[in-house]
Amino acid sequence: MNFDIVRYILGYVFMFQAAFFVLPAGVSLIYREHRVGLIYVGVLVLCALLGFLATRRRPQSRGMYAKEGMVTVALSWVLLSLTGAMPFTITGEIPSYVDAVFETVSGFTTTGSSILQDVETLSYASRFWRSFTHWVGGMGVLVFILAIIPMKGGEFMNLMKAESPGPSVSKLVPRLRDTAFVLYAIYMGMTVLEMILLLISGMPAFDAICLTMGTAGTGGFAVRSSGLTGYTMTQQGIITVFMILFGVNFNAYFLILHKKIKQAFRMEEVLTYLGIILLSVVVITINIAGMYPDAYSAFHHAFFQVGSIITTTGYATADFNQWPALAKTVLMTLVFIGACAGSTGGGLKVSRIIIMVKGIGKEITTLLHPRSVKKVRMDGRPVETEVVRSVNAYIALYLLLIVVSVLIVSLDNKDMVSTFTSVTVTINNIGPGLEEVGPMGNFYEFSNLSKIVLSFDMLAGRLELLPVLMLFVPSVWKKKHGTVKGLKNRMSKSGKGIHEENNGVCR
Amino acid sequence: MNFDIVRYILGYVFMFQAAFFVLPAGVSLIYREHRVGLIYVGVLVLCALLGFLATRRRPQSRGMYAKEGMVTVALSWVLLSLTGAMPFTITGEIPSYVDAVFETVSGFTTTGSSILQDVETLSYASRFWRSFTHWVGGMGVLVFILAIIPMKGGEFMNLMKAESPGPSVSKLVPRLRDTAFVLYAIYMGMTVLEMILLLISGMPAFDAICLTMGTAGTGGFAVRSSGLTGYTMTQQGIITVFMILFGVNFNAYFLILHKKIKQAFRMEEVLTYLGIILLSVVVITINIAGMYPDAYSAFHHAFFQVGSIITTTGYATADFNQWPALAKTVLMTLVFIGACAGSTGGGLKVSRIIIMVKGIGKEITTLLHPRSVKKVRMDGRPVETEVVRSVNAYIALYLLLIVVSVLIVSLDNKDMVSTFTSVTVTINNIGPGLEEVGPMGNFYEFSNLSKIVLSFDMLAGRLELLPVLMLFVPSVWKKKHGTVKGLKNRMSKSGKGIHEENNGVCR
Repeated sequence: MNFDIVRYILGYVFMFQAAFFVLPAGVSLIYREHRVGLIYVGVLVLCALLGFLATRRRPQSRGMYAKEGMVTVALSWVLLSLTGAMPFTITGEIPSYVDAVFETVSGFTTTGSSILQDVETLSYASRFWRSFTHWVGGMGVLVFILAIIPMKGGEFMNLMKAESPGPSVSKLVPRLRDTAFVLYAIYMGMTVLEMILLLISGMPAFDAICLTMGTAGTGGFAVRSSGLTGYTMTQQGIITVFMILFGVNFNAYFLILHKKIKQAFRMEEVLTYLGIILLSVVVITINIAGMYPDAYSAFHHAFFQVGSIITTTGYATADFNQWPALAKTVLMTLVFIGACAGSTGGGLKVSRIIIMVKGIGKEITTLLHPRSVKKVRMDGRPVETEVVRSVNAYIALYLLLIVVSVLIVSLDNKDMVSTFTSVTVTINNIGPGLEEVGPMGNFYEFSNLSKIVLSFDMLAGRLELLPVLMLFVPSVWKKKHGTVKGLKNRMSKSGKGIHEENNGVCR
Repeated sequence: MNFDIVRYILGYVFMFQAAFFVLPAGVSLIYREHRVGLIYVGVLVLCALLGFLATRRRPQSRGMYAKEGMVTVALSWVLLSLTGAMPFTITGEIPSYVDAVFETVSGFTTTGSSILQDVETLSYASRFWRSFTHWVGGMGVLVFILAIIPMKGGEFMNLMKAESPGPSVSKLVPRLRDTAFVLYAIYMGMTVLEMILLLISGMPAFDAICLTMGTAGTGGFAVRSSGLTGYTMTQQGIITVFMILFGVNFNAYFLILHKKIKQAFRMEEVLTYLGIILLSVVVITINIAGMYPDAYSAFHHAFFQVGSIITTTGYATADFNQWPALAKTVLMTLVFIGACAGSTGGGLKVSRIIIMVKGIGKEITTLLHPRSVKKVRMDGRPVETEVVRSVNAYIALYLLLIVVSVLIVSLDNKDMVSTFTSVTVTINNIGPGLEEVGPMGNFYEFSNLSKIVLSFDMLAGRLELLPVLMLFVPSVWKKKHGTVKGLKNRMSKSGKGIHEENNGVCR
């Protein structure tokens, strides 16, 4: 383990956190919340200081392998959450620090689960900060930071892989740094567009800015106690469309930018994603039709909720906890599927589901025709066996984490549905579950132990399990990395299983 | 597809079903239930006739490959259930034929889920028949039948593989037919032993016989409305121990018979199975201690329920629906784990869980040390990659079937817990779930559609998914099997992924 480089990059993370705090401090100026503003500035100074100290000495070795990449990413997110939670507790808005950390982790991981019983008791600065963490977490902060620190391609890759969602990272453009910039540009552009549309629709500026950041990061924090029920159908409609757009694999936009529109619309993952949305909306609309005055409202709410859950945003315009069993089951199925890989959304990701289902098909074919050498294919290209295997291992690990978490949370002795969905919606970065943690409920009543476990699940879900779990593998913390011999070999091979240079399926 | 051989073997299945009906007919004589007895004889004659007609012409080709093996096994179980359900409906004891089929499938698959609101309204003959189906289903009827019809080893293997539970079939003794006989002998011996012990404990003969058959098959049908609550602690204790014994991989008994006792007690699957039981009993005992007068009763009920659920038997001495959340969650986790492969129990099987968890470990190692060539090992021997892959595909398919089933059952608009557990306990062949389908509830209130889906899940779970799903693959029903060239190749290869001759892990 190269502790030097980890320390160095974490220093930059602190500096960025300091920069992030400038914004809520600015918001507090606008709304004349001077005390709150001072506290944000105080924490800002603390982070800047820590960042300065940690980056003063340049690392001797720049070696950054899979291990260092994962540990750096995991620690960055933990530190961002721990410092990001400070203002909430110091201002007294969220007295318990565990609660504040839960809320901040929920923000950065774009989950949107909240321990707040009434969000409007928060200052504007803190409500803004909450939503801003969604926006930062949506695209991942490390890739952004690393686009600034000079690094070699391979090192950069190991960090990007650890932070970005989905089973495989493809090089969109030859140079990875350029890729990062293009992705951020798309993200920024779509954010601005949604904000403008919401402002035109007559939404107050504060709400429009916060809700847009929540949509872009597929987060889900609202700024009013009534959630999203208080906005007009048009405003809800705009948010629906943008939620779904932010859940699309960003490769599709990249292809569209390069005028490869046909290719973009032939991406198997995107088509499947849209197909699942369409099917779910139809089923739920029919199922809930009796509960709404007309078919259009039923469709509107079905569409919003489906878009919100599959993209793992978690906004709600209706208390789907009251919906019939089929509608609830469909939504809870979407919880597991999640958005496209290479989007800002969470969950298992549509591409993993596709690879999993195709893997089943392949096993059956092998059984019936043992001599067949059929390979799992995606977008017409064969998927390496190693990718299929790592997808399966991922799903297995994911199930194991769910089981262990549910067992611990059930110590709180809540009903089975609240217990089970509290875990599944946090690990999938959704936000609201059912019953006590339904769209009109919150996570306040859970014990500190459960809140810590659920915070862990949110981080594990956002960073796709391994980086966070790596923190608990003792051998990772050994000072010596191993012999220098074979390092190159490692470098090139370590991407296998997650990354296939030539498949270009998704990042 | 070689329809000839399928027809021929199904003929034998009918003849065996006719032979099975002799027993309830005999019971009706003892209890002077003449009308019911006549009906059993009538269905007996029908089955004998069908069997006679189907076996009159010997098949021209004896070709029996994976495909034929699976289809034969699946159809046998369907036909056993359809004919086995007839007496219930003709006698009027279960007026709806769908209900009767559900009950019979639940019997043969050793699930033990019931649609009966009061089991004591049934005649003795029918209660006996219900429990007898557990005993028949526990070991599988086809392997038994085939030990009688002369067949080649490879052909026999394909049928045995399709019917016996667990990820791999190992040849216990060189000749497969001998293996089958040894297994049946162990089964029979343990059944007789339990029966004797229960009789000594003072249980009425009818109850002792029926409950023993339910334990042996890990079924779970009771013969009294009060379930198993009405028996003494000693009797419940005897049943607990035997449930756990019938959930052990039968290879262990085989080793013990051959005086390889040390080897038997070193079987990784058996040790893990016993470890899980111990841990669960401890956790649940502590969790429910406050609900019982003394620690021993808490332990007694924890032990019984854990043994009942992990072995997928489904007897209940306590309404665990009323237990605290942690205890319920532990039990629902055991629902998925299931018993050992090569036992009479259902579920995912302990060995699959072990392989899955070890597969995760291997992936993490590969990520950290890309040059390592570590293989997943079990009982000290390496597990072939193909086995790991097929285990993963199995789990994926299993999850997919659960999701689809839950979606259909949720059309009944019951609470989420009843809906979800009704599917998981049927697919894992347990019996009772939670809430409406809890140990004191039943499946009566479900719609016919749900009952058919749940019956399907029971069959799919018992036959380990593929044989039953195969019935819906159109290409399976094509008359031509393919060229003769390469058949030998197919024969030897078709076992791969399920069977590894040299691993001897489990059958």
